[in-house]
Amino acid sequence: MDNQRRFITDLTPGESIDQVFLVRDKDLRTTRSGDLYVMCTLCDRTGTLNGRLWQASEGIFRSIPTEGFLHVKGRTEDYRGTLQLIIEACRPYPAEKLDLADFLATTDKDIEQMWGELLDILRAIENKPLRMLIKKFVEDTEFVAAFKKAPAAMQMHHPFIGGLLEHTLGVARATKVVLELYPELNADLLLASVFLHDVGKAAELTSGISITYTDRGQLVGHITIAAMWVQERARQVAEETGEAFPQRTLDLLQHLILSHHGVHDYGSPKLPAIPEAFVLHYLDNLDAKMYMTLRAIETDVNAQSAFTTYLPQLETRIYKHSQDLS
Amino acid sequence: MDNQRRFITDLTPGESIDQVFLVRDKDLRTTRSGDLYVMCTLCDRTGTLNGRLWQASEGIFRSIPTEGFLHVKGRTEDYRGTLQLIIEACRPYPAEKLDLADFLATTDKDIEQMWGELLDILRAIENKPLRMLIKKFVEDTEFVAAFKKAPAAMQMHHPFIGGLLEHTLGVARATKVVLELYPELNADLLLASVFLHDVGKAAELTSGISITYTDRGQLVGHITIAAMWVQERARQVAEETGEAFPQRTLDLLQHLILSHHGVHDYGSPKLPAIPEAFVLHYLDNLDAKMYMTLRAIETDVNAQSAFTTYLPQLETRIYKHSQDLS
Amino acid sequence: MDNQRRFITDLTPGESIDQVFLVRDKDLRTTRSGDLYVMCTLCDRTGTLNGRLWQASEGIFRSIPTEGFLHVKGRTEDYRGTLQLIIEACRPYPAEKLDLADFLATTDKDIEQMWGELLDILRAIENKPLRMLIKKFVEDTEFVAAFKKAPAAMQMHHPFIGGLLEHTLGVARATKVVLELYPELNADLLLASVFLHDVGKAAELTSGISITYTDRGQLVGHITIAAMWVQERARQVAEETGEAFPQRTLDLLQHLILSHHGVHDYGSPKLPAIPEAFVLHYLDNLDAKMYMTLRAIETDVNAQSAFTTYLPQLETRIYKHSQDLS
Amino acid sequence: MDNQRRFITDLTPGESIDQVFLVRDKDLRTTRSGDLYVMCTLCDRTGTLNGRLWQASEGIFRSIPTEGFLHVKGRTEDYRGTLQLIIEACRPYPAEKLDLADFLATTDKDIEQMWGELLDILRAIENKPLRMLIKKFVEDTEFVAAFKKAPAAMQMHHPFIGGLLEHTLGVARATKVVLELYPELNADLLLASVFLHDVGKAAELTSGISITYTDRGQLVGHITIAAMWVQERARQVAEETGEAFPQRTLDLLQHLILSHHGVHDYGSPKLPAIPEAFVLHYLDNLDAKMYMTLRAIETDVNAQSAFTTYLPQLETRIYKHSQDLS
Amino acid sequence: MDNQRRFITDLTPGESIDQVFLVRDKDLRTTRSGDLYVMCTLCDRTGTLNGRLWQASEGIFRSIPTEGFLHVKGRTEDYRGTLQLIIEACRPYPAEKLDLADFLATTDKDIEQMWGELLDILRAIENKPLRMLIKKFVEDTEFVAAFKKAPAAMQMHHPFIGGLLEHTLGVARATKVVLELYPELNADLLLASVFLHDVGKAAELTSGISITYTDRGQLVGHITIAAMWVQERARQVAEETGEAFPQRTLDLLQHLILSHHGVHDYGSPKLPAIPEAFVLHYLDNLDAKMYMTLRAIETDVNAQSAFTTYLPQLETRIYKHSQDLS
Amino acid sequence: MDNQRRFITDLTPGESIDQVFLVRDKDLRTTRSGDLYVMCTLCDRTGTLNGRLWQASEGIFRSIPTEGFLHVKGRTEDYRGTLQLIIEACRPYPAEKLDLADFLATTDKDIEQMWGELLDILRAIENKPLRMLIKKFVEDTEFVAAFKKAPAAMQMHHPFIGGLLEHTLGVARATKVVLELYPELNADLLLASVFLHDVGKAAELTSGISITYTDRGQLVGHITIAAMWVQERARQVAEETGEAFPQRTLDLLQHLILSHHGVHDYGSPKLPAIPEAFVLHYLDNLDAKMYMTLRAIETDVNAQSAFTTYLPQLETRIYKHSQDLS
Repeated sequence: MDNQRRFITDLTPGESIDQVFLVRDKDLRTTRSGDLYVMCTLCDRTGTLNGRLWQASEGIFRSIPTEGFLHVKGRTEDYRGTLQLIIEACRPYPAEKLDLADFLATTDKDIEQMWGELLDILRAIENKPLRMLIKKFVEDTEFVAAFKKAPAAMQMHHPFIGGLLEHTLGVARATKVVLELYPELNADLLLASVFLHDVGKAAELTSGISITYTDRGQLVGHITIAAMWVQERARQVAEETGEAFPQRTLDLLQHLILSHHGVHDYGSPKLPAIPEAFVLHYLDNLDAKMYMTLRAIETDVNAQSAFTTYLPQLETRIYKHSQDLS
Repeated sequence: MDNQRRFITDLTPGESIDQVFLVRDKDLRTTRSGDLYVMCTLCDRTGTLNGRLWQASEGIFRSIPTEGFLHVKGRTEDYRGTLQLIIEACRPYPAEKLDLADFLATTDKDIEQMWGELLDILRAIENKPLRMLIKKFVEDTEFVAAFKKAPAAMQMHHPFIGGLLEHTLGVARATKVVLELYPELNADLLLASVFLHDVGKAAELTSGISITYTDRGQLVGHITIAAMWVQERARQVAEETGEAFPQRTLDLLQHLILSHHGVHDYGSPKLPAIPEAFVLHYLDNLDAKMYMTLRAIETDVNAQSAFTTYLPQLETRIYKHSQDLS
Repeated sequence: MDNQRRFITDLTPGESIDQVFLVRDKDLRTTRSGDLYVMCTLCDRTGTLNGRLWQASEGIFRSIPTEGFLHVKGRTEDYRGTLQLIIEACRPYPAEKLDLADFLATTDKDIEQMWGELLDILRAIENKPLRMLIKKFVEDTEFVAAFKKAPAAMQMHHPFIGGLLEHTLGVARATKVVLELYPELNADLLLASVFLHDVGKAAELTSGISITYTDRGQLVGHITIAAMWVQERARQVAEETGEAFPQRTLDLLQHLILSHHGVHDYGSPKLPAIPEAFVLHYLDNLDAKMYMTLRAIETDVNAQSAFTTYLPQLETRIYKHSQDLS
Repeated sequence: MDNQRRFITDLTPGESIDQVFLVRDKDLRTTRSGDLYVMCTLCDRTGTLNGRLWQASEGIFRSIPTEGFLHVKGRTEDYRGTLQLIIEACRPYPAEKLDLADFLATTDKDIEQMWGELLDILRAIENKPLRMLIKKFVEDTEFVAAFKKAPAAMQMHHPFIGGLLEHTLGVARATKVVLELYPELNADLLLASVFLHDVGKAAELTSGISITYTDRGQLVGHITIAAMWVQERARQVAEETGEAFPQRTLDLLQHLILSHHGVHDYGSPKLPAIPEAFVLHYLDNLDAKMYMTLRAIETDVNAQSAFTTYLPQLETRIYKHSQDLS
Repeated sequence: MDNQRRFITDLTPGESIDQVFLVRDKDLRTTRSGDLYVMCTLCDRTGTLNGRLWQASEGIFRSIPTEGFLHVKGRTEDYRGTLQLIIEACRPYPAEKLDLADFLATTDKDIEQMWGELLDILRAIENKPLRMLIKKFVEDTEFVAAFKKAPAAMQMHHPFIGGLLEHTLGVARATKVVLELYPELNADLLLASVFLHDVGKAAELTSGISITYTDRGQLVGHITIAAMWVQERARQVAEETGEAFPQRTLDLLQHLILSHHGVHDYGSPKLPAIPEAFVLHYLDNLDAKMYMTLRAIETDVNAQSAFTTYLPQLETRIYKHSQDLS
Repeated sequence: MDNQRRFITDLTPGESIDQVFLVRDKDLRTTRSGDLYVMCTLCDRTGTLNGRLWQASEGIFRSIPTEGFLHVKGRTEDYRGTLQLIIEACRPYPAEKLDLADFLATTDKDIEQMWGELLDILRAIENKPLRMLIKKFVEDTEFVAAFKKAPAAMQMHHPFIGGLLEHTLGVARATKVVLELYPELNADLLLASVFLHDVGKAAELTSGISITYTDRGQLVGHITIAAMWVQERARQVAEETGEAFPQRTLDLLQHLILSHHGVHDYGSPKLPAIPEAFVLHYLDNLDAKMYMTLRAIETDVNAQSAFTTYLPQLETRIYKHSQDLS
């Protein structure tokens, strides 16, 4: 095994491979002549690749983990325009000896630095009940750990470890500068809602080897989860202070969370009904769309076309050369 | 003042009136010749009536309460096909001396009897955590008082004191008999959700002299409020028992509440994803539509037409004689 | 051939097979080396299976019926996670010697017993013209035979022989118990409409070896067909009695049929405009959704997931464990 | 009473009036000082006008027919930009002495001539069963009388006596010329469907003093009624000839009727599924839109604006001067 | 006439008035007793007011301008909760002697200062063809005069003189700060599109005494007009330089204009297909919504309610106290 | 190579082939045993065919053009119900020696004859500015060449060389005859708009070896392009005549182009607002639907079914035998 990992995104046809992949979706198949072979999906943090092992046996098949790490020797080839890897030999590999960050898609930003910047932005909040409420979240180490690790979505935008934090910070930065332009807005309320609008995703999505919905995520959803968390933390603040948490503050903060998708169709039970709710809705959308479009341009495989493939979530293809007018 | 009240719904042109009404929307106006007169709305539990007092003064105008009770002497007359009351004399009247039920629209069923029947139906629940959860609601006298008094809606269906209870019982009765036809359903879960699906309306709507949205109702909404109440009561159950409230039970019960409007457009953040959620959605709708259609038929004023007026919420007019095939 | 049939749903990889299947979609293909082989679909009432016959010839291919019965010898194997059957020998098999119920998906309820129960429920109808109208349907043996055999849909719900009857009975049972809760409803009219609402499906769908739309079903549709049948039978009643069939009764019964899909988008030319039409619409939907959700849970193949696959017709995945709170 | 009628559309403020109107919506009202006066609507075929009779009595009020003819003396005046008629004296007037065509909105084309032209166009049909089917309609004098008198709609387009015929002829003329451009089309089928597509309106709408929906029209609708009439006449043809009416011909003709609104939202239970159905849909729409736009331009009252008022059914205002480029 | 103008927004019942108003919608009416009176609308830049002049004559009526300035003496009074002005005497007033800014709704910002700031922001553009293109607009004094005067909409947002400039500057400011957060964006292209996205409104809307659509605005629309203006100016640049204007730059700039409404339903013929188009769409919307919500809060007349009236364009009522958490 | 070309649409399994095809989408693949083979798509104007070349080498692969002409020897065979061609030998072939019309889908009408007929129809236009404007287009040889060659769409309708002309002529013919039926219409304006409504497609779509969107087509769209061309030509007319082009004529012509898709959802920034716009919209749609339905019937491969496959753009399957009632 080479010391230097070749990432999937960099592979070309005809390379010899001798390194570890994350393996999924293994399948034992029979050829016409009765021979067995194995098909599987090989992954690292940069992408996925079909693997094929000819002259297989049931023993070999069983030795491959259902979802785990596999040391593979073989060579790459082009199959119908897609790269695949012909596996000549393989054996399971212990996770402990690996740098997991090579295999799981992760933000390429520094998580602690982002977290620090987000806290800095939140420090501008002066309203005392809101400060205490946010403190309840920020001092809950279990919550913070989950928040830092969570993706922002399964596929749509920021679907990787740290994605929720990266996206939240993106919205916070934009909110901070936009707030200066509209002094009528309640900055405290808006900044608090930016931090909290998607926290429910830490419970809606798993952040393990693959990103999927939790049962609670699917049945209850991150919007309602976040509203409940705010309710619960407000109760804790009230217990601590011995005074009721201000009702209007609570109502408005929950309203911002509940309405941030902007329309019923995307799962918001309430439509924006305060100016701040429109700011949150548009800047949240803006940050997500920047990820989606820039990422689609960056990863588009068809160099000959000036447009990406059709993106169903945007109902269009994206033109790839708006950055270059020459 | 006669001992026997004449209700607004029974009045005809040309009657002499000497009794108390609830008064609203008073307005001092000037005629062409500079004389002042008062326009106001007179109400009792059966309907509303325009009141008009000629030869008014600012003093008289101020003596009429903004929203309160008024003893009126005068006569009824027909004005453009609508009855109005020409007020000859009036003075404010103390609420204490009145039977409020004469003035506020109220269910015509016995509230305690309905509540008893609902509790009977809920007694069929065997699952222990659900029983304890419901107990937390049922033994909270403040909640129960609000629940019994709450309307089910501002206008759409059961918009009167006790309407929420009457509607909840209607859905519970239908659920009880339908459950016997589909034995695969989880009866405990479904009955609990029937009880709880609309409880948030007790906080969403006021149930005073007029029914309106509370700030929290408008900003957060009864669906999310109910989900939060369930969360809070489940926490209390867990504290009491010293064991975590079963997560799946909590997820499913909240899912039923969140999805009971059936589609995103009506404010459900989640679509029904368990068989029980479809039952709740259809039987809730069925009971509401029975109220809306039967009430529209009953109160339609145009005797000459076989159809009611156009009902925007149903996108049609209702035919009034389906009960009579002869 | 074994005496005891192995149903497709029970097969596992590696079994030797020697029995009859219903065959469809046969296809003669050439391998790279110019050899011919046959692909086909093998069916019984429990499901379908791909069949593959290597070293084929045109003669063998022609000997396989286009849609008919085939005696097959061979072995099962797993191909890309799906079972297939490698056919070693085969010959056509006469339908007469088979129990067709082994091959065509059929209700697992007793058809005659269901029919009897449905007639019992309809006996509660007291209105004489409606009784005579229903009698015209019930005494038409050709209609009754088709009604008992018809499926309720091609795929959505109850897509099997007897499905229309099973679904109609499901709606009738629910209607019967719900009617007791809303005494204002016209029970005669509603029960008659429950029986007739989907009868057009007996002409819209074939109920032969495979369920497909008839030309008339596709061009005219079961809703209009049912309305026409009611028109024609009412004419026959009028001829028999010498009196015009009561117009209002006819109008309302046809209205119930025409509006039972509830919204224009699902092909209803009229929206519900009588209370009874809402009952029919909701209980029809309820019974269909119970089939769809419970069936999706029952047949879901992915044991590891707590949710079924995505169901486009419900716009969600269904959670499989709502019946089990423990 | 002058010999020469002044039509409402021609009246200006300040005229003395002495002639008969159709009266509707009479209303007895009380002034502030207790005096009675009468408000009513006066109509002729060109429009409507508010009538007001001061110093009324109950006797005078009762003498005015609820919906009938009234001989009126009085003068016109402008009231808030709208013309009204101050009635000085009035008495009921016998319908027999009037030319009803002065009072009911009627096509300004010759009905018999239009009917003759329509029959001429239909004579091009060669297919024998279709010819016989159409004959069944055309020889039914009761049907023909109703068809000639029926409006094409309550308000949307051709809402006057003879409107259905005028519209049907408009579509027939356009179809005739378009057919020559697309020789692949089945001309017989298409022409028959043009004649029959809206015949149900003869039963859906009343064509008396005012145009309203019949109960059957509201509950069943003209689309289904027309499909049923075709079914019934086809049965009569079959009885007469002793041969079954060709099923495909019947299916296609009914399909054309059922799909001619083009989309479900406008009440079509089926979408166009043959080329002819698209022709019917577009030319039907074209003729209706020509009426709606040209009529809106012709009757728009605001001479200063280059656009008509907003037309909700077209979701726009119509520019009035496209005919004049100078 | 007082030296100091009383603006309509500040008037209360019972004031004596002696000053000039802009008058519109004058109407001569007859009372029951045959007396004439005049109704009209009185306006200044702060709002509108009904005016009523009793004991009128045709001469007085004619002396009032159809749309112009009127010196009025009279007194204010409350009529059905709305203020009206009883006119005792009036005469037309020459526009020359007035400060028009008192009568026409105008931005309360300094127009030249806003224009200067906008030009400053545009100076950051480095791309030469874009600079030349913008210069063509900025040096066209007729265009600049129209741009500075134009409103941003008839009613929705910034419906006043200078509104287009105020809104454009608002979007430009937000774009400038957001651009720093997303360095991948093409700043030149985006800033140019911010300036040009709504310029077509200068031709779509009139900016005279009342704001209405021009014929070209209604028939062609500001989106297409702006795209055409860019096309024409690019042609001029090409003529001047003797080189073709870069096609990609032109395509992208027009794309930004055409897609800035974001969805087809709001009249965009193209959906956003470059990252910059999403930024323009969201920040344009954000600035408009800030105006709409803050303005609705500021002008809401019902002090007792915590919510504004229902705003159809936002499908909700706006909560008025989000700025104040205490 | 045979003298007589065998077109793809006529090929059957088992033929020996020796002729030229247009080749696309070539792909070099590896078999299990490491052998290379080539997959490619072979085209002529009648359709496409998969080509497969076993025992390939990189040299052979490179010798095949990426998109160009290939002389092929081989034999046809059936693969999974689809015809494929096993290539035994091949070499590139010079385009100059070919009749390109054999390879590119082209209208089967005579282009010059269609163009002549279209000009004849346009000659009926009497309005001078419109005549001059059209002349500017018709005398621009570059435009005319592109217009004659352009397809009307990528896939939906008339997707072949000459398709735009064929479709435009189809709409022009229908407009000509319909105009006679509605004499109120402005024939000059309507005919001019028929000619120009889709001209932008000459710039929106390429018309080379394959039909795709140009960058400008995708970013700006044919509707706006056409409106701009009209603007530019009108400017040229004005320059030539020294008089402004009549503004109303320009507004209306552009309005017709902008609104001809009829609804916002299909990319029309304006809804039809003159009678002529409805005619253009319906007859444009009619001609397109005739192509789509008749073509779907003609090319449907499944002879056993009375319906075509499901057509997503029409949301239905098309019945294939409406032309034949027997």
